[in-house]
Amino acid sequence: MAIEVHILGSSSATPIFDRHPTSQLVRVLHHTFLVDCGEGTQMQLTRYHHKASKISHIFISHLHGDHYLGLVGLLSTMNLQGRKTPLFLYGPPGLAEIVTVQLKYSESRFNFPVHLKELEGDKLYTILEEDKYKVEAFPLEHRIPCYGFRFTLKKTNRKLNKSKLPEDLSLLQLGALKKGLDVFDENGNIRIHNQDVTFDPLPEVSYSYCSDTCYTPHLAEWLRGTNLLYHESTFTSDFAERAKETFHSTAAQAAQIAKDMKVKKLILGHFSARYKDLHPLLDEARSVFPYSFLGIEGQTFIVNQS
Amino acid sequence: MAIEVHILGSSSATPIFDRHPTSQLVRVLHHTFLVDCGEGTQMQLTRYHHKASKISHIFISHLHGDHYLGLVGLLSTMNLQGRKTPLFLYGPPGLAEIVTVQLKYSESRFNFPVHLKELEGDKLYTILEEDKYKVEAFPLEHRIPCYGFRFTLKKTNRKLNKSKLPEDLSLLQLGALKKGLDVFDENGNIRIHNQDVTFDPLPEVSYSYCSDTCYTPHLAEWLRGTNLLYHESTFTSDFAERAKETFHSTAAQAAQIAKDMKVKKLILGHFSARYKDLHPLLDEARSVFPYSFLGIEGQTFIVNQS
Repeated sequence: MAIEVHILGSSSATPIFDRHPTSQLVRVLHHTFLVDCGEGTQMQLTRYHHKASKISHIFISHLHGDHYLGLVGLLSTMNLQGRKTPLFLYGPPGLAEIVTVQLKYSESRFNFPVHLKELEGDKLYTILEEDKYKVEAFPLEHRIPCYGFRFTLKKTNRKLNKSKLPEDLSLLQLGALKKGLDVFDENGNIRIHNQDVTFDPLPEVSYSYCSDTCYTPHLAEWLRGTNLLYHESTFTSDFAERAKETFHSTAAQAAQIAKDMKVKKLILGHFSARYKDLHPLLDEARSVFPYSFLGIEGQTFIVNQS
Repeated sequence: MAIEVHILGSSSATPIFDRHPTSQLVRVLHHTFLVDCGEGTQMQLTRYHHKASKISHIFISHLHGDHYLGLVGLLSTMNLQGRKTPLFLYGPPGLAEIVTVQLKYSESRFNFPVHLKELEGDKLYTILEEDKYKVEAFPLEHRIPCYGFRFTLKKTNRKLNKSKLPEDLSLLQLGALKKGLDVFDENGNIRIHNQDVTFDPLPEVSYSYCSDTCYTPHLAEWLRGTNLLYHESTFTSDFAERAKETFHSTAAQAAQIAKDMKVKKLILGHFSARYKDLHPLLDEARSVFPYSFLGIEGQTFIVNQS
């Protein structure tokens, strides 16, 4: 089981050099999530053969246009395609008003339910949880309210080794084995040692998405152990002052966060229009954290649980 | 002198087959206008090497997303590029609210003046006029308020044939010649016959843009003699009922309007996602009006005044 991250857009506010505003498709088990939805995201979905109809949840980090201007167009296209299944939308306060005012003047309504949850936490908190996965949000430090998201595949139960299991076990006993317990006989003695008939559980793995933010060291505390990290890296260090002024990060700062978080791999993105060639950003990040990669359109990053 | 029409988007609401939502760049003399601004227009401008900074006026036909969702992104990019020159924006009531609510939540402002004029006429009326050209708006028949636009290069003055002009003429006399008058001597006799020293004026030419509309025969009355016509043609005639229900037109209806208007050339556009191959639309239009053309991305149509 895995988390897949498909990059749809890698540019900062000005799209150029065939780079597009921020958006990522994140698959967790059989669920398809969209994270941010800059202008043109629906075309990028088509370009990379992703079906909009499969998206169940959309997470918007903040209300700067390069992170949400594709949303109303995407919702309209879903509607025209005959969508009936609910869509769950998460974003900062204001997103509902922005969508609503546009529906009002287009005299349109969606023929599928849209459930909007506004983000409001001031620390890491869970916004969506199922048996096998959860999604958390956490505040970033940007010019306006901005949230990151962590997608976690939970540690699994132990898996039964069917070739070694007696056939007479009850569902209750099988359940106990999956949870790591032994099976006892009527006299209270161990009948089956758990480790003899089960495989180890698959570990928890997670992907963290840090959208627009200035260098925020405490993220490393909150997200320590994240396997895969996306962290914006708008500038190289020679524009560190500009990064600070605009509440963005340098590639070196993104890499420092990755190093402090002890992640396995860092994805860089949100590249300024001043860089036609992105290698200076990559080189800078790798000088701090060697497992840094450019998150450009069409690339996929995978976190495997096993 | 000429009017140039550059097609940036040719699709109806669902962008597909590398077709993009509606937008056109219209050049009249040295002025650069943008007509409609669907999602991704700023990328299309870049793709076809048009500079956003040169656009002075933007005309939005109506508030369905496929005609304006690229506007806020384009304005933001102009701002990031350091624009200082004013921008004139024309659109239906509601456009100001849509832009304003988005600026509010992004806590942004533009560092250049944006002058918005809301369209409200119920017939053909002038919205912009200079010495040499004018722009008119006219209501179309769509599900929500929707406007078309006519761009007209006015008939010029007569042009002086300098090789035949005496050198002693005053500015007043030269002005009279340009207006088609003769020059008289002190005794009130004709000294110079106008036609001996001037060339004929260049005729009025115009381009009319009929965005989303059902078949509206009275347009032919209003816009008779337009040289170049863009008229939406979302469907072929086998979907005439669907066209009527959705306040759109068939290719045959667009061609009939072109024929009735006595235009020189018809541009078809706003193609439904059901047509991967657009030739059925073109063939249908040409069976009614032979000078019909597909207005696809990257194409340019020119109306010359001479």
